[in-house]
Amino acid sequence: MAINLSFTPPDFSDRQFTEAPPAAMAPSPASGIAPENYHATSNFPEYVKLESGEWLLAPEGRMDAVLVFKNGNLEVTEARRLSKGDLVVIGRTENGEEGIYVHDACFVETKESEDKFTFRSRGTRETPFSHSYDSLYEILKHDREHGYIVWVLGPAVAFDKDSRKAMQGLIEHGYCHALMAGNALATHDIEAAHFSTGLGQNIYSQELQPLGHYNHLDILNAVRKAGSIKKAIEELEIKDGIMYACEEKNIPYILAGSIRDDGPLPEIVSDVYQAQNVMREHARKATTVITMATQLHSIAFGNMTPSYKVLQDGTIRPVYFYIVDMSEFSADKLANRGSSQAQAILTNVQDFIVNIWNHLSSETTGG
Amino acid sequence: MAINLSFTPPDFSDRQFTEAPPAAMAPSPASGIAPENYHATSNFPEYVKLESGEWLLAPEGRMDAVLVFKNGNLEVTEARRLSKGDLVVIGRTENGEEGIYVHDACFVETKESEDKFTFRSRGTRETPFSHSYDSLYEILKHDREHGYIVWVLGPAVAFDKDSRKAMQGLIEHGYCHALMAGNALATHDIEAAHFSTGLGQNIYSQELQPLGHYNHLDILNAVRKAGSIKKAIEELEIKDGIMYACEEKNIPYILAGSIRDDGPLPEIVSDVYQAQNVMREHARKATTVITMATQLHSIAFGNMTPSYKVLQDGTIRPVYFYIVDMSEFSADKLANRGSSQAQAILTNVQDFIVNIWNHLSSETTGG
Amino acid sequence: MAINLSFTPPDFSDRQFTEAPPAAMAPSPASGIAPENYHATSNFPEYVKLESGEWLLAPEGRMDAVLVFKNGNLEVTEARRLSKGDLVVIGRTENGEEGIYVHDACFVETKESEDKFTFRSRGTRETPFSHSYDSLYEILKHDREHGYIVWVLGPAVAFDKDSRKAMQGLIEHGYCHALMAGNALATHDIEAAHFSTGLGQNIYSQELQPLGHYNHLDILNAVRKAGSIKKAIEELEIKDGIMYACEEKNIPYILAGSIRDDGPLPEIVSDVYQAQNVMREHARKATTVITMATQLHSIAFGNMTPSYKVLQDGTIRPVYFYIVDMSEFSADKLANRGSSQAQAILTNVQDFIVNIWNHLSSETTGG
Amino acid sequence: MAINLSFTPPDFSDRQFTEAPPAAMAPSPASGIAPENYHATSNFPEYVKLESGEWLLAPEGRMDAVLVFKNGNLEVTEARRLSKGDLVVIGRTENGEEGIYVHDACFVETKESEDKFTFRSRGTRETPFSHSYDSLYEILKHDREHGYIVWVLGPAVAFDKDSRKAMQGLIEHGYCHALMAGNALATHDIEAAHFSTGLGQNIYSQELQPLGHYNHLDILNAVRKAGSIKKAIEELEIKDGIMYACEEKNIPYILAGSIRDDGPLPEIVSDVYQAQNVMREHARKATTVITMATQLHSIAFGNMTPSYKVLQDGTIRPVYFYIVDMSEFSADKLANRGSSQAQAILTNVQDFIVNIWNHLSSETTGG
Repeated sequence: MAINLSFTPPDFSDRQFTEAPPAAMAPSPASGIAPENYHATSNFPEYVKLESGEWLLAPEGRMDAVLVFKNGNLEVTEARRLSKGDLVVIGRTENGEEGIYVHDACFVETKESEDKFTFRSRGTRETPFSHSYDSLYEILKHDREHGYIVWVLGPAVAFDKDSRKAMQGLIEHGYCHALMAGNALATHDIEAAHFSTGLGQNIYSQELQPLGHYNHLDILNAVRKAGSIKKAIEELEIKDGIMYACEEKNIPYILAGSIRDDGPLPEIVSDVYQAQNVMREHARKATTVITMATQLHSIAFGNMTPSYKVLQDGTIRPVYFYIVDMSEFSADKLANRGSSQAQAILTNVQDFIVNIWNHLSSETTGG
Repeated sequence: MAINLSFTPPDFSDRQFTEAPPAAMAPSPASGIAPENYHATSNFPEYVKLESGEWLLAPEGRMDAVLVFKNGNLEVTEARRLSKGDLVVIGRTENGEEGIYVHDACFVETKESEDKFTFRSRGTRETPFSHSYDSLYEILKHDREHGYIVWVLGPAVAFDKDSRKAMQGLIEHGYCHALMAGNALATHDIEAAHFSTGLGQNIYSQELQPLGHYNHLDILNAVRKAGSIKKAIEELEIKDGIMYACEEKNIPYILAGSIRDDGPLPEIVSDVYQAQNVMREHARKATTVITMATQLHSIAFGNMTPSYKVLQDGTIRPVYFYIVDMSEFSADKLANRGSSQAQAILTNVQDFIVNIWNHLSSETTGG
Repeated sequence: MAINLSFTPPDFSDRQFTEAPPAAMAPSPASGIAPENYHATSNFPEYVKLESGEWLLAPEGRMDAVLVFKNGNLEVTEARRLSKGDLVVIGRTENGEEGIYVHDACFVETKESEDKFTFRSRGTRETPFSHSYDSLYEILKHDREHGYIVWVLGPAVAFDKDSRKAMQGLIEHGYCHALMAGNALATHDIEAAHFSTGLGQNIYSQELQPLGHYNHLDILNAVRKAGSIKKAIEELEIKDGIMYACEEKNIPYILAGSIRDDGPLPEIVSDVYQAQNVMREHARKATTVITMATQLHSIAFGNMTPSYKVLQDGTIRPVYFYIVDMSEFSADKLANRGSSQAQAILTNVQDFIVNIWNHLSSETTGG
Repeated sequence: MAINLSFTPPDFSDRQFTEAPPAAMAPSPASGIAPENYHATSNFPEYVKLESGEWLLAPEGRMDAVLVFKNGNLEVTEARRLSKGDLVVIGRTENGEEGIYVHDACFVETKESEDKFTFRSRGTRETPFSHSYDSLYEILKHDREHGYIVWVLGPAVAFDKDSRKAMQGLIEHGYCHALMAGNALATHDIEAAHFSTGLGQNIYSQELQPLGHYNHLDILNAVRKAGSIKKAIEELEIKDGIMYACEEKNIPYILAGSIRDDGPLPEIVSDVYQAQNVMREHARKATTVITMATQLHSIAFGNMTPSYKVLQDGTIRPVYFYIVDMSEFSADKLANRGSSQAQAILTNVQDFIVNIWNHLSSETTGG
C-alpha cells in the first residue's frame, strides 16, 4: 500500500557528497529581503552541508522559501519573514555542487513505460480512480490515529445535503485534524443549517427560495451580531453541518479572507499573509491533505506543504496530497505551480465526499 | 416524486381548438424529400386536426422529423425515409392556427423565481445533486418492472474496475432494457475482462502495461476471428463485464460505428443512418434514458427520444432523460440541440454509476 | 449600437408609486451590523420613497449592500462599514410595496424567442462572437474619451509576448483608466520585462529556462528591495509591459493580495476588505469593465459594479461588463453570483486582447 | 524555423541493426484477420529488415495498422482490409530484436529541463501561443506551394460570420488542399450563406430568428432536392462560405456521416469505414493538418496521419499536426490515443481562424 513507501536517504558516503563544499551563507541585507544568489526551496527534502561536513536536513520544507541557519539548525522561511542579518543559504545547484542537495526521488519508484508508443500517458477524467479511492481509504484510516489530516474546502461542499452530511461525519469521527477554507464555505454551511439553502437554493430540492438571496446576508449579519461562529451556533440552535462539527469536536479551522467575500464572518483572517502564516502551522503538521473544488486554496496550501514529514521518532514519511476537482486545468495548474506530487481525482466533490464517508462510516465505530 | 407527474391533455373544447382549421397535407415530391412548408416535429406531444375535427396525437415523437398521415394514423418519420407520395403534414405554427398543436407544457409545473434578483439561476457543477440521485433511484426501481430503461454509454465507463462492475450489476439485476454504445465501449470492456486493462492501462492500478497498446488490437482481432461477441465470450472464457452481462441476460445492444473506430467488432452497425434506424426502435420504447460521458451518442439519442410515452393502456407519461458528464458545455450543448427536458448531473461517470449501483444493490433481491 | 441604449425612468405618476408608502428606516444596532429586515441592494438602479413623497435614486449601486440615508441622500454601503446608529432602509419587496423600487428593466428590451422549440438558447463557446467584438470596439472608442474603462486581469495576460504587448498598447493609448489585478499579474509582467519569462517559461518560445523558477522570486526580491514598482522599473531599466505602461501613463492600479501570493510586491493591499474598499472607488466610476481569466477578481469586481452610471449631467447610462474566459463554468458562476448583466466572451484571453488591440491600434493615432 | 527540422535516419551500420534478424512474416488466416503476434504500427517511421539484409521503410504510416509485404514493398494497412494470405510482419519489439525498428526520435531534439523542480511542465490554456502562431504562419506559407494542407473542421467554424469568412479566404487563397468535416459543418455553412443563421441563430447578431430551427432542415431538404451541394449552390445562388469556396476552387472535401446527423446531405459518406478509407487518401498526402473544435474528427484523422512524409525526391519531412480546442481534455485525449506529436492551441476556433487569416491575407497576393 502506498503508505508503506519507505524513505531512501541519500548515501552521504558517495563522492558526490564527500567532495562537496560546505554551503555558503550570507546575511539578509534588509528585513524581508534575501541576499544575492539565495537558494529557494522546493517541496522535496533538502540537505545542506555544514562546515563540519555534516549534511543537515531542512525540516518542514515548503516551495519558494529560503533556508535560514540559526542556532545550528535550518529553518525554512518565506523571504518576506526574514530579519535583517539572518544567515541565508546561498546557491542554486541541486546535486551538492554548492553544498545543497535536493532529494527528489526519495519515495517514488519510477516505473514509467519504456514503450516508444503508448496510449494514456496523461491523467484525465478517464483515468480509472478505484485504486485512488482504495488507497485513500487506507491512508485516512491510518492517519486518523497516526497522522494529521488537513481538508481544504471550496464552498461547493456545503451546497449539497449529502455532501455536507458526509463532511460532518468525517469530522465527527476523527478523519479531520484541521480545516482550511474561506468565508463562503463557512457562511453557506451555516446558511444550510439554518435555512436549508445555499445562496438561496434549497440544498436538497434545488429550488430557489423566494427572497433566498437574503439568506446568506442574514446569516452573516446574525453571526457578526453574535460575535463568533461558536456563539452563533448556540444562538441559532444549529445542530448540524461542517462548522458545527468543528466546534463540537474542537477541530481547528482557518478561514482566510478573499476579495470576493461578503460579510465577513468574525473569524476571517483578513490579511492574506497573516492567513498564510496560520495556515502554514497546519501545513507543517500535515501528513495527508485533501483539497476540494477550490483552485485558490489548493494552490495556496499546495505551495506550503512539503512532500515529506519528519516524524517524532526521526523517520521520514511521504505527505499525501490529493486534489479533487472537475477540470484537468485545475489539476494541471497545481502541477504547473510546482506541486507535482499532488494526485488528482477528477470528479464532482459531492460524489467524492459521499463515497469517502460511505466507505469509512461502515468501518468506523465510535468517534 | 417526479414519476407521478400526471399528464394534462389539451382541452380540445377550447375555441383555440374548435375554431382551428384541419391541417393541410401535401405529398412528398420525391423519395427522401419533404414538400414545401412541411411541419417539423419537436420532442413534445403534437396533435394534428383531421378533416373530421378529431385531434390526433402523434405517437413516439422525435425532434426534426415530419408527420406522415397513413391509414388514418400519424407516423413520425425522418425526412430521409419518406417515400414519394407520402402525405406530409404542412404548417409551422404551434397553437392550432394551421391545425397543429405542440403541447409543450403537458407535464411541467413551472415554478420559476419571481424575484428580480437571484443567485444560482443556472445549473452547474455546484448545483446540489442529492435530490437528482434520489429521484433517479425511484425512477429506476419503478421502471425496472414497469418501463424501458435505456443506457447510452461512452467508453469511460469501461475504464475503471468499480464502474464496470457497477454497470454489470445494473444489467444483471434488471435495470437495463437496452444498451446503446460504440465500438470503443465494447472493445475496452472485453479488453478489461481478458487483460484487466483499458487501452493498455490497468483498470485498477492505473499502471501502463508493457506492450499494453496491443491489448485492444488483440481483442478486436480475437473477436473478429470468433465472428461475434457472443462466441468470443465463450472462446475467451469471459465471465464479467458489461458485454458479458448483456449476452448473459439477453439484453439487446446497438453498437454504432464511428470514424474513430479500430477493428471494428462484428456487431458494429457501420452505416450511421442504419444505426439511427435501429437505435430509434429503442427510443420509441424508452421510458428512462441515461447517457454517460458521450456527447456524440447523447445528442444522437436525445434527438430521437420523445419527451413522453403513450403506454399500452393509453395513459401518457414523461420520458426521463439524464445526461451525466463532466462539463457544462456538454450539458448545454444537448439543450442547445433541442433536448431541453434533459436533466444534467455533472460528475465523473465512474462515481455516478458506482453510487447508483451501491444504492440499488442494497435494495435489490434476485435478478 | 449598444451604447445608445437609453435609460427609461420609472413613471412615478403611476398608482404603483403614488400609493406606495414611504420606506421605513431603522438605525444600525451596532457597528458593522444591519438592523432587522434591512434591504439589500442589487446591481440595478433602486429608488426609495421618502416621507416627502420623492423617489430618490441610490447612486453607485452594488450588490448585497445596504442603503443608508444620510444628509438627505442615499449611500450604498457594505454592512460591515455601517456605524452604529446609521439609518438603514428597511424592506424586502421590490415593486414599491414598502417604498422601494428595483428598476431592473431600465435598459434592456427583451426580445426572447416565442417559439416553443428552439435550438441554442444558451450561450456557449459556440456562440458567434463577431458582434460582441464589434460592439466592444465601439464602446471602447467611445469610453476612451467619455467614460471610465476598468480592466481586471488574471496572470495569464502576462504569460504571452503578444498579449502583453497588446495590453501595453491599450494602456498607452488611453483605453484603460484603471487596472485591477493581483500580485501574480504584476510579478509575471515584470519578470517578462526583465527575463523574458513567465514563471520561468519563455513568453515567446515556450521553452523552460534553466533555473527559470528563480526568475519570479528574483523579481520579487528586487522590487521589494527597490521599495516600489516605480523604483524597480527605473533600477531594472524596464521599458515595456503592463506595469511599465501604467507607471508611464499614471494609470491607477490596485493589486489585491491573495493567499496564493509569493513575495509580495510592495504595492499589494494585503487586507482583503481594505482591497475591496479601494477597488470599489473605481467600480463607482466605471462605465465599462473587462475581466480576463480570473474568476476570483471577476466575481469580486462584478459584485461591486452597478449596472448603471449616473453621469455628471444627470443622465443615466448602462455600465458594460464583459467577462472573458475559457470555460462556461466561469461565466455561469458570475451569473450565479448575481451579475446577470455580464456578457461572456468564451476564448483564450491571449487571442482576445490581441484582437482588440489589432483593431483599435489601426484606428488610433497618438496617445 | 520548425519546418527546417531535418530527418536523421538510423545508422544501419550499427551492430543493433547488422546483427538483427530479418523480420518474420505470416499469412493472414482469413479476410480481415491478422495472424498471431502481428506487428502493429505507430505514427513514427518504421523499418523492417528483409532476408536480403535491407532495412525497408514503411511508407505512409498510420497508428494501429499492420505491415503487409507485397511485391517487394511494405504496405501499411488496417487489419480489417487484409485479404486471406497477405503476408503480415510479425513481432512486437521496436529496436531491431525481431527485425523491426521504430524510429521515434527522428526529428525531435529533446531539450527537456533538467531541473528537479520546475513550474509549467504541462501545456494548458496559459501556455504562451505567440510562437505557435508564428510557426504556423511560416508552415502554411511554405506548404501552400510545397505541401498538402488538410483542415479538419467542427461545426463551430460555421457559426460565426468572421470565422466563416476567414476560412473562405484561406481556401480561396491556396491554404487548403483538402477539407475533412461532417454533415453539420456543411449544413450550417450553407444555412449561413442562405439564411445568415446557424441552427437558427443569426451568425452576426446572435439573435434567435423566429422559426429559425427550420432553417437547417430547409437547407437539408433543398440540397437533397438539388441532388448535390454543387447544384444547390447554383440553385440557391450562394456566393460565400466554406463549401462555396471548396466548390469554386475544386478543393476536395470528405463529409463523414455520424449518428447525430439530420438529413443528410447527398455527399455524406454514411458508412464510417468507407469514410475512413477516403479520409486516409488525404492523410497519406498531408504535410500539415489543422483540426478545429471536433474531438471526433480530430482523433479519427490523428490516428491515420503519420508523423512523417516521404517526399517525391526521397527526402523525409515531419508532418505538422495542430489541434485547436477550448479544453485541455480534448488535447490530452488526442495524446492519450497515441497522437503525441500533435501540438495543442487552446482557444476558441473563431479567434484562431480569424487570426490566421488576418495575418496571411496581408501577405497574400492573388489566389
